Amino acid sequence: MLSIEKYQQEFIEYLNNYSIVKEPNGLYRPIEYILNLGGKRLRPVLTLMTTEIFNGDYKKALNAALSIEVFHNFSLVHDDIMDDAPLRRGQQTVHEKWNINTGILSGDAMLIMAYQLFENYEPNTFQALAKLFGKTALEVCEGQQYDVDFETRNDVSIPEYLKMIEYKTAVLLGAAMTMGAIVAGASEKDQQHIYEFGKNLGVAFQLQDDYLDAFGDPKSFGKQVGGDIIENKKTYLYLKALEFAKEAEKTYLLKLFNEKPIDNLFKIDQVKTLFLTTGSAEANQKEIRNYTNKAFSVLNDLNISEDKKELLKAFGNQLMNRTI
Amino acid sequence: MLSIEKYQQEFIEYLNNYSIVKEPNGLYRPIEYILNLGGKRLRPVLTLMTTEIFNGDYKKALNAALSIEVFHNFSLVHDDIMDDAPLRRGQQTVHEKWNINTGILSGDAMLIMAYQLFENYEPNTFQALAKLFGKTALEVCEGQQYDVDFETRNDVSIPEYLKMIEYKTAVLLGAAMTMGAIVAGASEKDQQHIYEFGKNLGVAFQLQDDYLDAFGDPKSFGKQVGGDIIENKKTYLYLKALEFAKEAEKTYLLKLFNEKPIDNLFKIDQVKTLFLTTGSAEANQKEIRNYTNKAFSVLNDLNISEDKKELLKAFGNQLMNRTI
Repeated sequence: MLSIEKYQQEFIEYLNNYSIVKEPNGLYRPIEYILNLGGKRLRPVLTLMTTEIFNGDYKKALNAALSIEVFHNFSLVHDDIMDDAPLRRGQQTVHEKWNINTGILSGDAMLIMAYQLFENYEPNTFQALAKLFGKTALEVCEGQQYDVDFETRNDVSIPEYLKMIEYKTAVLLGAAMTMGAIVAGASEKDQQHIYEFGKNLGVAFQLQDDYLDAFGDPKSFGKQVGGDIIENKKTYLYLKALEFAKEAEKTYLLKLFNEKPIDNLFKIDQVKTLFLTTGSAEANQKEIRNYTNKAFSVLNDLNISEDKKELLKAFGNQLMNRTI
Repeated sequence: MLSIEKYQQEFIEYLNNYSIVKEPNGLYRPIEYILNLGGKRLRPVLTLMTTEIFNGDYKKALNAALSIEVFHNFSLVHDDIMDDAPLRRGQQTVHEKWNINTGILSGDAMLIMAYQLFENYEPNTFQALAKLFGKTALEVCEGQQYDVDFETRNDVSIPEYLKMIEYKTAVLLGAAMTMGAIVAGASEKDQQHIYEFGKNLGVAFQLQDDYLDAFGDPKSFGKQVGGDIIENKKTYLYLKALEFAKEAEKTYLLKLFNEKPIDNLFKIDQVKTLFLTTGSAEANQKEIRNYTNKAFSVLNDLNISEDKKELLKAFGNQLMNRTI
């Protein structure tokens, strides 16, 4: 099996040969731009790796991996419009560099192009991939809608938050791995198990992302640290802090999340302190371990060799100990 | 074979049973809303009719017909955002009734739902339908991009305009018919021919739409008459008027299309007069007959009975003589 870095390289090479320099320019240039902004390429790597985990040829999974990456970038382009985000990976977002209409239309084209990449497979595989893709893509939309709804709600519960990140983020990681299993011809049972593995790891991944958003090192994290706090995001950290907080702390936290602050750095600092003193930061890390263990426990049911199970475990642990 | 009205009825009944009342409300209610705003249901009717033209069971084509209609409405929702349109079929557009973010996200979900409707077919048919759908959907996006580009260009040619409406409108009519042929199990040759028939009829349909936009009866047309003129749309009527106009007429038409008018009704009246005096209105009607005849000439190559060819002709003529 290849290393993570090698999968990344192979994927990026394949992406570079993916021809999107077509007319009209106004539609395709933004697509080329966003696909080449970089990123960890986590999702396609998961697809390629899983294909080899199930003894398939990872090269056959390159189109499925690319489909997942194109879809992921479609969702970033449309989400960035909805979130009014100026930057993505340190560069201008598509709607900032061009305009909102371009962001909408180029995003639409990417969603279609993601589907089209399955056309390289024979009909049965095509249908299996497209079905999983459709179900997952719709759940991602539902997750985004919940995320939007939560902005104006003051009664979001922790199970609701966990469901939201499951839909918005985790199911795509599950689907990325399952697509690798489908291409490798794994059994339906193994497909289901690896989906559960990926999905649970995906929830842990997002909780870790939330943690790094508050407590990450600004030098290595790549995004603005404290972004979620500035935007008053009702993350697990925030919801758990409210649950654990004493009356005075709770009042203060609610106040911080309801006022337009004069000094964002002061707000971030105060909120982070509350995350620590209430114990919500610790609870968040415990929940990460919960979901990681849930993912690992699925490995027992997988019909693969022990050293491959160890490999998946090592990958999961590496993902949770990341600082970027 | 059923009548057009009966296909419409059957389709609407099927649409009413299509369950979209799901959570989250914020995502699915706008979808329900736009799908039930009405309209001629031309595209799904084309699919059902073509299935029977090729001796298939139209009931088997209901999911493909619904997919086409869901896709068409997806494109309306996103186009209405881009065009900043307040009304659609006399009712509020989705982004007006809710907001732009809802329009984007509900539209995305509709595009995915359109694909999902093919899951009701066995793998080979699924792939054939999804491939045609993907190609067509991407062309519709390209057509929309050309339309956007034309707004700020002053050198749009008539062939470019015809290509734009071919992509934005006509290919979907071609695809709607071809999907009926696919479901009926028609030969690849027949599929290609009926696609050409539908596409050429689609260009004629759009040119007729442009004509009605200027010269239609406000009582029956349903849209604001003169809308294209108000928005300075570079239609065939406008481009041909520029080509035919004498120097003074040309200067006046360019002036009318470049100034913010004090009185829109006066502008509409002046432009319509120019469309008539330059002969562009007549040229537009001639082009409609051209494309209709091009469509009809394809019928000779189709492997269907004469009375079915007559039926397609009658349908084409009916479409071109419509006033709504």
